[in-house]
Amino acid sequence: MNKNNNKRLRGILLGAGFVALAAFLFTGCPSEQRMLDSGDAAQKVYVAPGDHDEFYGFFSGGYSGQLSVWGLPSARMLKVIPVFSQDPETAYGYSEETKPLFNTSYGFIPWDDSHHPHISQTDGNADGRWIFINANNTPRIARIDLETFQTKEILELPNTGGNHASSYVTSNTEYVIGATRFSIPYEKDLDVPIDSYSDEFRGSLSFIEVDQETGMMEVDFQIVVPPYNYDLGRAGKGISSDWVFFTTYNTEEAHTMLEVNASRNDKDFIAAVNWKKAAELVRDGHGKTMDAEYYHNHYNGKKQGYAVSEVKNEVTVLDTREIDENFIYYLPTPKSPHGVDVDPTGEYIVGGGKLATVIPVHSFSNMLEAIENDDIDDYIDGIPVLNYDATIAGEVENPGLGPLHTEFDGKGYAYTSVYISSEIVKWSLETFEVVDRIDSYYSIGHLMITGGDTVDPDAQYMVGLTKTAKDRYLPTGPKQNHPAQLYDISGDKMELLLDFPTIGEPHYAQSIKADKIVDQIAKIYEMEENDHPDALLRMTENRVERRGNDVHIYMGATRSHFRPDNIEGVKLGDDVYVHLTNMEQEWDVVHGIAIKGSQSTELLVPPGQTKTIKWTPTRTGIYPFYCTAFCSALHQEMQGYIRVSGPDSNVELTWSTNE
Amino acid sequence: MNKNNNKRLRGILLGAGFVALAAFLFTGCPSEQRMLDSGDAAQKVYVAPGDHDEFYGFFSGGYSGQLSVWGLPSARMLKVIPVFSQDPETAYGYSEETKPLFNTSYGFIPWDDSHHPHISQTDGNADGRWIFINANNTPRIARIDLETFQTKEILELPNTGGNHASSYVTSNTEYVIGATRFSIPYEKDLDVPIDSYSDEFRGSLSFIEVDQETGMMEVDFQIVVPPYNYDLGRAGKGISSDWVFFTTYNTEEAHTMLEVNASRNDKDFIAAVNWKKAAELVRDGHGKTMDAEYYHNHYNGKKQGYAVSEVKNEVTVLDTREIDENFIYYLPTPKSPHGVDVDPTGEYIVGGGKLATVIPVHSFSNMLEAIENDDIDDYIDGIPVLNYDATIAGEVENPGLGPLHTEFDGKGYAYTSVYISSEIVKWSLETFEVVDRIDSYYSIGHLMITGGDTVDPDAQYMVGLTKTAKDRYLPTGPKQNHPAQLYDISGDKMELLLDFPTIGEPHYAQSIKADKIVDQIAKIYEMEENDHPDALLRMTENRVERRGNDVHIYMGATRSHFRPDNIEGVKLGDDVYVHLTNMEQEWDVVHGIAIKGSQSTELLVPPGQTKTIKWTPTRTGIYPFYCTAFCSALHQEMQGYIRVSGPDSNVELTWSTNE
Repeated sequence: MNKNNNKRLRGILLGAGFVALAAFLFTGCPSEQRMLDSGDAAQKVYVAPGDHDEFYGFFSGGYSGQLSVWGLPSARMLKVIPVFSQDPETAYGYSEETKPLFNTSYGFIPWDDSHHPHISQTDGNADGRWIFINANNTPRIARIDLETFQTKEILELPNTGGNHASSYVTSNTEYVIGATRFSIPYEKDLDVPIDSYSDEFRGSLSFIEVDQETGMMEVDFQIVVPPYNYDLGRAGKGISSDWVFFTTYNTEEAHTMLEVNASRNDKDFIAAVNWKKAAELVRDGHGKTMDAEYYHNHYNGKKQGYAVSEVKNEVTVLDTREIDENFIYYLPTPKSPHGVDVDPTGEYIVGGGKLATVIPVHSFSNMLEAIENDDIDDYIDGIPVLNYDATIAGEVENPGLGPLHTEFDGKGYAYTSVYISSEIVKWSLETFEVVDRIDSYYSIGHLMITGGDTVDPDAQYMVGLTKTAKDRYLPTGPKQNHPAQLYDISGDKMELLLDFPTIGEPHYAQSIKADKIVDQIAKIYEMEENDHPDALLRMTENRVERRGNDVHIYMGATRSHFRPDNIEGVKLGDDVYVHLTNMEQEWDVVHGIAIKGSQSTELLVPPGQTKTIKWTPTRTGIYPFYCTAFCSALHQEMQGYIRVSGPDSNVELTWSTNE
Repeated sequence: MNKNNNKRLRGILLGAGFVALAAFLFTGCPSEQRMLDSGDAAQKVYVAPGDHDEFYGFFSGGYSGQLSVWGLPSARMLKVIPVFSQDPETAYGYSEETKPLFNTSYGFIPWDDSHHPHISQTDGNADGRWIFINANNTPRIARIDLETFQTKEILELPNTGGNHASSYVTSNTEYVIGATRFSIPYEKDLDVPIDSYSDEFRGSLSFIEVDQETGMMEVDFQIVVPPYNYDLGRAGKGISSDWVFFTTYNTEEAHTMLEVNASRNDKDFIAAVNWKKAAELVRDGHGKTMDAEYYHNHYNGKKQGYAVSEVKNEVTVLDTREIDENFIYYLPTPKSPHGVDVDPTGEYIVGGGKLATVIPVHSFSNMLEAIENDDIDDYIDGIPVLNYDATIAGEVENPGLGPLHTEFDGKGYAYTSVYISSEIVKWSLETFEVVDRIDSYYSIGHLMITGGDTVDPDAQYMVGLTKTAKDRYLPTGPKQNHPAQLYDISGDKMELLLDFPTIGEPHYAQSIKADKIVDQIAKIYEMEENDHPDALLRMTENRVERRGNDVHIYMGATRSHFRPDNIEGVKLGDDVYVHLTNMEQEWDVVHGIAIKGSQSTELLVPPGQTKTIKWTPTRTGIYPFYCTAFCSALHQEMQGYIRVSGPDSNVELTWSTNE
């Protein structure tokens, strides 16, 4: 750990006032400084021009709200997929097609904070059909299709304050899960004092059913739970695949200064939920229906066209206080645990006790036995609290300070990120002993193992997603991009290969072997499958139509012209809708359109697609438009003009190209 | 050139219908396929963890509207600086401080298309004070300060249709230039038929004066010129530093189907403007004042606070038709030239005749002599057209098909990007002979030499900015990110080192040796220099104030809490302004805030800065807020609640933290 890092750690510790932890740190266990010979590392990460990476990495955007796609091991960023935030570049959230995706019960929201991408699974393995990701602030889940790398659906979650423990899927993508990080009054729009917290606030866990054909999501049921903070989640695997697990903190039920007030209890809980049983209880009528308001935005099963927003008005709820049967259990876990991770066999449930001095490892078999034996210390709102000694399989000693998240190599080892001491520790699932440790730069959050969080990881590389760059790269001002480190974990010892800046604030990431999905990826939008209601299917059908004060321009683009390219008869007071279809059918030949003075964005249109922008002219005159994507040798010639006249003008509506 | 690329070329050529060019292509000169041994290349681009790159690269975002910052030779993307487009991640264009930057005479515009960054110069060398960049669609120029890597100013250009030939600076940053790509009626808001083009439309060239202390821009004067398309520009250097040069195309004055109609003339022009003389003419009263409407948005000289929008109502114009003295000359140049580039000595002015079979090189000395000798073929609107043979220094034969842009190594060689045959050719400024050529992947636009476009390039690396990725990386759908290639040009032969995807559509890029600017880069915003009117300078001053229906929350953030963190008394109908100050003074320790359901973005606040977001609650209830930047071990505890009551509620306005 270098000097700068130590300084940072002191800052954190003084800031938090954890003198006892600081004492531990400075008598603690420094990580080994180790990396490959720079020549070897250079070779291992170099992907020669024209060669392809072995893995796709999908990194959450964090506060960017998006999802970025990386090639590994080269650490080249291949694309940013816009999900929860407006993207002026692609008109995402500005075009008429995509605006409905941003509707919520609070109105149109141009941003969110996306943390945990999860690839759809079949039999516990990533299958590459879809990737789900959460919105943390205004609680939602998005589904991105891995054929076109586009966001296809966004579902709002009712009764949720901060959907952080999301969007993990069960082993066959039966459910994608969500949970409240911040407890809030469960009743819709309830206006109560904040200090009524313990009485009026509740937590909720959400189970979203996924249609196996279309991927479409719906809220199947919620479980209403005590007013703790539900932090992270994971589905079980193999033997535990009927279960999901959530960490809690703030079992103190504090509503102010949680830094101090939510750090008092020695143990909080991991909530173990038997989702199969819960679903049965719902089917058997044990749920109640509650008023709710939330949006479901999607493309209605169409390949192209306008997304639609459906408003939902109720939700089915299981309340542990009202149901006799047990389907959720609390596993006491030290201390304010953050991550909860399940090993490839499904037997071990690892807590990230961020203020704990050990890594607690629960055993699924022990847990079943404890349930069987009624090894119950307490009940909270009808939820049995199992005995810690009964469920625990072991505690990893000397894990460094602030263990957070764990992934697995499928060869008997676990890798845990450790925030405060800024390192990764590798430990044995057999002995629970640390066998290796390596620095991270600086202050690691999640880590990701290639093929991780499946029953069968391809554990060749590991990426540490770290929180501050400081001196790692050339400086770029007071705020720097978040770094990542790429490690080789194919051998006994972890080896640092590369340190690279990311985009947004990647929290979790997932990866998949490229050969699992390359063949399904679309290279064009097939014109013959273009079912957009305003598509221009043949260039000769280009036209302009006036409907009252709406002017619709049906325009085609091909190398190297637009049709029509001269338009007159638009008037002040009109709303102009430009429906642009890219007539090309060749991979990666993109056209765009920008209109001077338009109060929106460009349209950037891939081959075979149709997109629409709305423009309300505010001044009379001549407005040039042009192709924004350098498409051909005569791209600079790809332009046109629209004439805007006064509101009472007699200029006839005309359109033409070279006539 | 590989098979896929050939296929693409055929597509381009067929699309454009240039059968003659196609014939040339297939009998043309294939580039040599050459790259370093992969081991050597890997070593050359590998920057080991913790080590720093040698160069900063600033890549335009193209249709993203932003500017990205890269480390070279590692090709790691260090940051995206938001400039012309909204950036939900940083609240740029959403925060109250930055919204005024987006105002134009057409309203608030959330997007633009940025092409040509140019670093400020002193004596013809990049000095790293500021970087300027153009908005191509709604014509503007932005200035980014290279102390904080922030956009500080955006100036709209009147009477301009597509500010493409911008934002190049003169040798001492006296001026930054702009020009109309699309000619339009020069008179404000003039509503005339499009086919009155030749009579009513005009071009304009803009000269924006830069204050040497503050960097603040103002439109000093415009030159009104014939209605051609003004494509690219460059300032002279050394002997030619009183001049700027612009390419033209569409001297045919077409307004429809330019693909065909603007490709008829064998020669178009390079416009050579003696800016010093033009400025003198303006000082001597030869300009006329015309009505105009354009916005000037900036921070009013303050370090922090709200940007302001000034509306300007007139502009000074030099009309070549009305002024006897000559200050602008046309140099005939084959054929629809795109780039115009000036060598480090200032003697050679290289046209990129995109449909020409040679690269035409004008001599500045010849040009002066031709002017002296009245070697004039014609006058157009009072502009002398010089004789081609009199100004030309040489023509580079066999340059490949579609030469576009040229940079120089300062050792006697020029490097020209060639779009259609997708290669870079290196040629001698002494013999005008091609000495080397190498492939690009695929369809190169601009190229950039490290330290390029200065009197003294550090010509170690070259980056080719190419237009289609196709099969270069793992596929990501019908639209892929634009690639770049990094070449080593330190030896006689160009060597390909790396192929990497970029972000947005980089057109031009510039670079500067890192050691020229690292020392000036701010690591924090000094609290004692925080002159934001709504800053919270001491944590104890945190408070909430009601002013009518506006509620102002003055909030501080530090590891790991907000003050205040419990707020009651907000009512439906209120507008809530959250002014968040990050109280930290440690590099790269960032806090953010997100409020559930807020119809805006988060605030992401670097150390010592204050930012403001406006939120209009739409539903009663309890709204959690939290820190969006993983700031500390107890980051997850950094949260609070705001209670929103009905419009007639009696809930008193209160705020507290842990009280």
